[in-house]
Amino acid sequence: MSAPPPFPSRPRVGLVGFGAFGRLIARHLAPHAGLTVHDPYLPAATLAARLAADAGPHAVAADLAAAADCPLVILATPVASLAEAVRGLAPHLRPGTLVVDVGSVKTGPAAILQAELPVDVEILATHPLFGPQSAGESADGIRGLKIAVCPLRGRRALRAAAFLRRGLGLDVILTTPEAHDRAMASVQGLTHLIAKVLVAMEPLPTRMTTRSFDLLMQAVGMVRHDAPEVFHAIERANPHAAAVRQRFFALARRLDAELSAEAEFSAEPVHAGPDRLAS
Amino acid sequence: MSAPPPFPSRPRVGLVGFGAFGRLIARHLAPHAGLTVHDPYLPAATLAARLAADAGPHAVAADLAAAADCPLVILATPVASLAEAVRGLAPHLRPGTLVVDVGSVKTGPAAILQAELPVDVEILATHPLFGPQSAGESADGIRGLKIAVCPLRGRRALRAAAFLRRGLGLDVILTTPEAHDRAMASVQGLTHLIAKVLVAMEPLPTRMTTRSFDLLMQAVGMVRHDAPEVFHAIERANPHAAAVRQRFFALARRLDAELSAEAEFSAEPVHAGPDRLAS
Repeated sequence: MSAPPPFPSRPRVGLVGFGAFGRLIARHLAPHAGLTVHDPYLPAATLAARLAADAGPHAVAADLAAAADCPLVILATPVASLAEAVRGLAPHLRPGTLVVDVGSVKTGPAAILQAELPVDVEILATHPLFGPQSAGESADGIRGLKIAVCPLRGRRALRAAAFLRRGLGLDVILTTPEAHDRAMASVQGLTHLIAKVLVAMEPLPTRMTTRSFDLLMQAVGMVRHDAPEVFHAIERANPHAAAVRQRFFALARRLDAELSAEAEFSAEPVHAGPDRLAS
Repeated sequence: MSAPPPFPSRPRVGLVGFGAFGRLIARHLAPHAGLTVHDPYLPAATLAARLAADAGPHAVAADLAAAADCPLVILATPVASLAEAVRGLAPHLRPGTLVVDVGSVKTGPAAILQAELPVDVEILATHPLFGPQSAGESADGIRGLKIAVCPLRGRRALRAAAFLRRGLGLDVILTTPEAHDRAMASVQGLTHLIAKVLVAMEPLPTRMTTRSFDLLMQAVGMVRHDAPEVFHAIERANPHAAAVRQRFFALARRLDAELSAEAEFSAEPVHAGPDRLAS
């Protein structure tokens, strides 16, 4: 069913999903590999235009079977549709193929990959701890940026982790799906939660600001344009996110209660007159 | 009552209060002025040691009357004890003296300064939008950092604002106490609120982090060691802070309710099995 390999002299990589993150992958793998790209939702013309812009001559659009025929297949689909993507992919994979995912949560996706992929297929679950924004921020591109990596099955998964470190210069953090999701429930859960609330409070001052507020809004700026799927993966698909949220809200409520209780000791609002500010 | 001026060849500046911010002021004014410093709460030996460290030979410790005798007097006391400080200072001031405050709120302090200082004393209310931390961060020191400035009374107040810009290189933002407090209720109110809650959630991940989370924690790091008086001035003495907090909490609750309602559509937790992640 699959066409002859289009890049005889390069390592062949299949890429399933060509949204914001799939495109970022293509830009950084194009110098190293020949990419066979499949996206079930993009119109053919859109996909072709994106491929030309992001990977130049080192990528071709193809059907799922052709992408699956590569020795390395990267799944860059939303976490919520991973199961569907894996089930569609599984029948086309050759023994020994390495499948890599890149989602923001790892416990659920790792279970899906291990349950749905043939036992002779190797698995590396990853979460690049950056998006197109941070990757575009530095002159070094993605060099030095962090990626969490869970080798789930096979020796090629370990070799791929080594390539991420030496080939792409990433800061590779070896972890487990459980440890990853616990950390990200705080790291991404809190960042996105705070960002959502602050964006809802806009307009906020931009001229009369402190350095710490500027840093806060810089953090907000890095995640405010993330796709809704990313927010939902972080806040709902991560099994620990709800508990972190509850803890944040409980502590915030306690702080608010403390501030309100203290305020009651001043009989009037503190700005009512000079006396109210005396200690 | 006051001793002869100790710095005959330099502009004389009285500085009342020698906590973290008073010391920062001394470090940056010592090259330009002779400082007469009074702090009612510091033991004499501590004050002498701090003066030697921060201002070298260009500062002397003195009583309140000697500090009040200078043509420019800076009040670097906590907002909560400003009224007391101003009342103590007022009887010692000469006509034409310029009094400057540096507190984190401006409506209440401006009212105090205007009500308690003699009518022939000029007033400049200021809020340097930085602390010792941001000032120490850059090789340029305080150059380019922001200061909010409300000239309340007299022409020397305007000239002092010009010195802050040209002499010290600060980014001077001319404003009113009301506009300042409205902006700071969001800027400082939100930063300190979020920082307090995040500090209470520690330990938080430090290795497996995203760039946006790192920025968030950098913002937290800049305010976490602020004196409790600063937090209380920001959250309680600012007349608009409570409303901003209520809005933050209301939006956070709404977001939480939305996430919980969506989660109910999944009959089981999303990590219970592969099927739950399918869209």
